[in-house]
Amino acid sequence: MRPPEELRSDFPALSQAAHGHPLAYLDNAATTQKPRAVLDAVRSFYEKDYANVHRGLYDLSVRATEAFESSRRRVADFLEAASPEEIIFTRGTTEAINLLASSAGRSLLQHGDGVLLTEMEHHANLVPWQMLRSLGIRLHFLPVDDEQGTIDWNRVEEIAKKHRIRLLAFTHVSNSLGKVNPAAEICARARSLGLLSLVDAAQSAGHQHLSVREIGCDFLAFSGHKMCAPTGIGVLYGRQELLDLLPPYQTGGEMIAEVRLDQSSWKSPPHRFEAGTPNIGGAIGLRAAIDYLQTVGLDAVEKHTASLASYAASGLASIPGIRILGPRNHRAGIVSFVLDKVHAHDLVAFLDQEGLALRAGDHCNQPLLRKFGLAATARASFYLYNLREEVDRLIEAVEKTRRYFAG
Amino acid sequence: MRPPEELRSDFPALSQAAHGHPLAYLDNAATTQKPRAVLDAVRSFYEKDYANVHRGLYDLSVRATEAFESSRRRVADFLEAASPEEIIFTRGTTEAINLLASSAGRSLLQHGDGVLLTEMEHHANLVPWQMLRSLGIRLHFLPVDDEQGTIDWNRVEEIAKKHRIRLLAFTHVSNSLGKVNPAAEICARARSLGLLSLVDAAQSAGHQHLSVREIGCDFLAFSGHKMCAPTGIGVLYGRQELLDLLPPYQTGGEMIAEVRLDQSSWKSPPHRFEAGTPNIGGAIGLRAAIDYLQTVGLDAVEKHTASLASYAASGLASIPGIRILGPRNHRAGIVSFVLDKVHAHDLVAFLDQEGLALRAGDHCNQPLLRKFGLAATARASFYLYNLREEVDRLIEAVEKTRRYFAG
Repeated sequence: MRPPEELRSDFPALSQAAHGHPLAYLDNAATTQKPRAVLDAVRSFYEKDYANVHRGLYDLSVRATEAFESSRRRVADFLEAASPEEIIFTRGTTEAINLLASSAGRSLLQHGDGVLLTEMEHHANLVPWQMLRSLGIRLHFLPVDDEQGTIDWNRVEEIAKKHRIRLLAFTHVSNSLGKVNPAAEICARARSLGLLSLVDAAQSAGHQHLSVREIGCDFLAFSGHKMCAPTGIGVLYGRQELLDLLPPYQTGGEMIAEVRLDQSSWKSPPHRFEAGTPNIGGAIGLRAAIDYLQTVGLDAVEKHTASLASYAASGLASIPGIRILGPRNHRAGIVSFVLDKVHAHDLVAFLDQEGLALRAGDHCNQPLLRKFGLAATARASFYLYNLREEVDRLIEAVEKTRRYFAG
Repeated sequence: MRPPEELRSDFPALSQAAHGHPLAYLDNAATTQKPRAVLDAVRSFYEKDYANVHRGLYDLSVRATEAFESSRRRVADFLEAASPEEIIFTRGTTEAINLLASSAGRSLLQHGDGVLLTEMEHHANLVPWQMLRSLGIRLHFLPVDDEQGTIDWNRVEEIAKKHRIRLLAFTHVSNSLGKVNPAAEICARARSLGLLSLVDAAQSAGHQHLSVREIGCDFLAFSGHKMCAPTGIGVLYGRQELLDLLPPYQTGGEMIAEVRLDQSSWKSPPHRFEAGTPNIGGAIGLRAAIDYLQTVGLDAVEKHTASLASYAASGLASIPGIRILGPRNHRAGIVSFVLDKVHAHDLVAFLDQEGLALRAGDHCNQPLLRKFGLAATARASFYLYNLREEVDRLIEAVEKTRRYFAG
């Protein structure tokens, strides 16, 4: 990998100061900064090739359509999907899971069926499934056994048989714990039990090599903005034979075959699920983000962020009164922690004064944090452009904050 | 208004050639080009102020949140809404209407209630309402009496009383006919009959002065990309006391108050309806587009586009075998037409060779075109940057095409 000191120069936002310090942006699990290559690609598209897609016969519209559909092909390659028809563009992970839950709730899932989730799911992979309860679909949960994020996946079989589970939906990487779930193993287990599987890849896409072929999942969702792309674009991957069975989600132009006043018929996937003008510029940006990340190298990105997180976790561990969540080994680029007698919000407000941008809160993981007796943690999350010296600054500033509050 | 010759220079895409001619972009009802000011604003935001919104305590996130929420305030001012809380960001008009139909179908509308539409609705304001039939909600239609787009709005009262109509949803400007419906009169009539009203403003927002206060509607939807903003951002306006009654649409992060494994509670509008990371960059672009359009002057934009359309319609009318749809007077910036013995697709393919970018198709208006015995029309649609000489080129090229096909 090009050294992170050099990669940083690709990201204009990272060269700014914060409260008189160089900005250390450590909130990458919430969203990542954008490299110049992505901003350039989007701008160039709007300046040269922009028109609405799919319906135009003139040259400019043909070019816009080709750019948009080539983005879909690029995503299919990136995920190692069987075909571009398996790629649905959405606003992000949240919309992708809403789409799937809503459509599956009217087709793949029947009254009395169960959906199995884990206790570490982001609200985006929990609340949309709760909405299916009105259809008689039941939710069940694999417990998280400790603050390291341990889940006993052997329990899946027993729960599946007892509760007529039809679908297992789980996060690939926990956004609050940094726990990496063994997605391929889990999906193999699901398949052997006849369960459908959804992988929430919001924290893994663009952060490590990611292949739906290797994972063997039925569905996978991710957001562009957490992997260098602009906001407003994301993806739902689905195996083609399953997408064919799903009814539309949003309806309107672009997704219909024929419309009469009293009824309509639908196009095939993926267009069936993309009503109205899509986020064309966003898709172009996502393609440029994939190009950028593959040039950097995703294995290298994974190694770098894991190394920073491990370094941060061990450095922070020496601070008196600190409690660090997440796995001791094989941690993704995320470190959540709390400091005895200091509210997480006060802690990150202090860190902000040192130019360190961290998040404090429940990280859309209220049930999990509640289980640990917590309302909020501070969270540092890393990406390809973060530096070891930023971690050093973090450790030093947390220690400084501790001393301040200790009086 | 600054002369259109000068405004054009604000739009980089317009300076290109098409098939050896200067590009005449006449597909503005599908989408509009983007001025440099909008592209600059989005880029500058990502380069200087980008972070995720609402949940951050550090300086950068506070700035991003302020930029995003100031976009909401700007939209509220633009529409003369009572408060920014009445502005919900969506992907576009299509999602806005899907959101409303889905949520209203579970709250404001009851089994046996009727929704009244017109026969000239875009599929986006038809198909989402068809989806409510499974809930026992019935659709009724105000007929379009002729190719001018005449609707007898006096019929609303009779239909409303006979069929328990609860909501009247209609397009402000027909995207295929260029007909302008008298929105304020219609909404006053709806209100006097106790009906809720939705205005589909996809073709009017950014094309004329638009005030929900003056129109007196309950809901209004529009897309940013048809008014100089990037793709992937749009708005649902709703009166606050009605939004308060609507259940969520998509669920996940950002829109919840409290989440437990077995149930969740919701934030107040507008956040209740904005699950997950929104299209932050898109909202910043929409704000810049509003700034740009208000500087140009919306009354002037309306006058200019109507003048071009009227000039085009009268010029085209002299061509033998042409059939022009839409009103003779008070036409918005849209001219749909067919040429005897020439398929609309062949016609616009010929026009493309002359550097003229027009759309051919059903314009997501299949039921209306079917009523007129048509499968497709050619459509020229104008915006602030179009020139009279482009209209002259259009008329000449249509005549040339006619002669070619006449052999």
